[in-house]
Amino acid sequence: MRLNEIGEHNLIKRITRKAKNRNVLVGIGDDAAVIKTGKGKMVITVDTLVENDHFTLKWFTPKQVGMKAMEINTSDIGAMNAIPRYALVSLCLPKTTTLNFVDGLYKGIYSVADKYGIDIVGGNMTHGHEIVVDITMIGEAKGKIPLRSNARPGDYIISSGNLGASTAGLNLFLKKKSGFAAVKKKHVEPKAKLKKAYALAKYTNAMEDCSDGLASEVRNICAQSKCGAVIEWDKIPVSRETIKAAKAIGLESKNFALFGGEDFELIATVPKKHLSKVKGFVVGRITKEKKIYLKKNGKKEQLEKAGYDHFA
Amino acid sequence: MRLNEIGEHNLIKRITRKAKNRNVLVGIGDDAAVIKTGKGKMVITVDTLVENDHFTLKWFTPKQVGMKAMEINTSDIGAMNAIPRYALVSLCLPKTTTLNFVDGLYKGIYSVADKYGIDIVGGNMTHGHEIVVDITMIGEAKGKIPLRSNARPGDYIISSGNLGASTAGLNLFLKKKSGFAAVKKKHVEPKAKLKKAYALAKYTNAMEDCSDGLASEVRNICAQSKCGAVIEWDKIPVSRETIKAAKAIGLESKNFALFGGEDFELIATVPKKHLSKVKGFVVGRITKEKKIYLKKNGKKEQLEKAGYDHFA
Repeated sequence: MRLNEIGEHNLIKRITRKAKNRNVLVGIGDDAAVIKTGKGKMVITVDTLVENDHFTLKWFTPKQVGMKAMEINTSDIGAMNAIPRYALVSLCLPKTTTLNFVDGLYKGIYSVADKYGIDIVGGNMTHGHEIVVDITMIGEAKGKIPLRSNARPGDYIISSGNLGASTAGLNLFLKKKSGFAAVKKKHVEPKAKLKKAYALAKYTNAMEDCSDGLASEVRNICAQSKCGAVIEWDKIPVSRETIKAAKAIGLESKNFALFGGEDFELIATVPKKHLSKVKGFVVGRITKEKKIYLKKNGKKEQLEKAGYDHFA
Repeated sequence: MRLNEIGEHNLIKRITRKAKNRNVLVGIGDDAAVIKTGKGKMVITVDTLVENDHFTLKWFTPKQVGMKAMEINTSDIGAMNAIPRYALVSLCLPKTTTLNFVDGLYKGIYSVADKYGIDIVGGNMTHGHEIVVDITMIGEAKGKIPLRSNARPGDYIISSGNLGASTAGLNLFLKKKSGFAAVKKKHVEPKAKLKKAYALAKYTNAMEDCSDGLASEVRNICAQSKCGAVIEWDKIPVSRETIKAAKAIGLESKNFALFGGEDFELIATVPKKHLSKVKGFVVGRITKEKKIYLKKNGKKEQLEKAGYDHFA
């Protein structure tokens, strides 16, 4: 059997084993692992950018590649209500890579490191046939950690901001559509939403950053919380610019929001009593029934397609 | 300028910046970073295997790939006199990868994890054109950490065991030479030498695991300790089997020891007063003069070539 037959989620399930060390508070399956260290809690995550998959030098500058690699990890740390502190940068680079690329990459890495106060404490360099930027990030938990497994039936599903812009930007590039600079920028310069994450954390049951699309994040939360959800098509927040950009290339922006990903907003589930205290867009509800529905034009249909699969 | 012109070591120097957080006790440049966590110290390292560079499925089983990926990181943790605790596994896999490969890989990863008591707490999976296995490992410092920067003129340079076998094994495979199973096994099943590392740590000034060859490790130690060294050709320890294997393919086993790497013995510098307390082979001395010499047939020549360079 090949990986494109089994799929990413089943594969992760297959290789996951429960941790034995009791200092492992959260293992595989959330935005980051959580480890007890003396009185504190450390969160650790790793994420990878592969050339011509997660980025292309056709429309990313080297600096933007470095920035993206750091922001996507910072986003995972933020979704655990933690402060990013340290990072290790592991690179595969073809021997023909230019010094210009590496200098630009690190300019991007350090610019984000400086913004958030992160130290680059280590890494590795080796050669390969394609550029792979793999960053491990370590953060310090601020307090309560809103896990994916903690959603409760009745919770409101919140998006901390508009979705779909990054995928709209990608499609503008792919279709060589001029204009829409602001939408394209959302693709090449995604930002972690640390402040939004910290503000939400106090009031949420479950939280996750939106890297693989709303449908995928809701599915992750539901799978781990053993519940289901109804997402309301009309309520999916998409900016005017994104709608306009999607129309210009004949595509549906809400599908970008559902299945595209890389917006790095927070998807959180909030109990009714806290709803007035949080900022964000309500996009649906958590249900007891363990299925995920999309409510569109008054009809409720089960959501089959559920976000980006790396091996599909 | 391209990376093959600047070289790995200059590149690392170029991208390294001093850490700002005072909890970073050791940053880029040693076997692992060291971070203060409350009362303890955490060490963190990352290392990568790329298909057809660090391994090939022509002579590695998937399980051996997983084992190697874990052992080489464990070796770095050991060289810092630390206990390996947690690992994150970040994979790039072609979509056509078989489930059989992934199952075997994780069998190897978990077999080493179980041997040392390491928990796999996270990771990432994405697709790429070649298999990349990137492991981040976190350990807990046992006590004194023998840094690369701490060698002193007059120190004896020690290898904790025989060198050159892994590269001899690789060359046997490359030349399709039958026999020499034990030497080949050193290449496909390298082992971290944790016990040797812990035993040495107390008495060494500097220590490093031998991943890129004796010449490279001595050069690293000298560069960071601002000193030089004399390595004695006659004293470089190579097993009889390795000598025999090298001869059978018409190559010089001591060159494997000097420039080959992947033996994962410890290279340590030990002050005279502790020499009688350590087990290992004396291979040379640390000198005040900041040059590295090889003494061979009574002649002292400067060692120009200095180990594996990933971009050469």
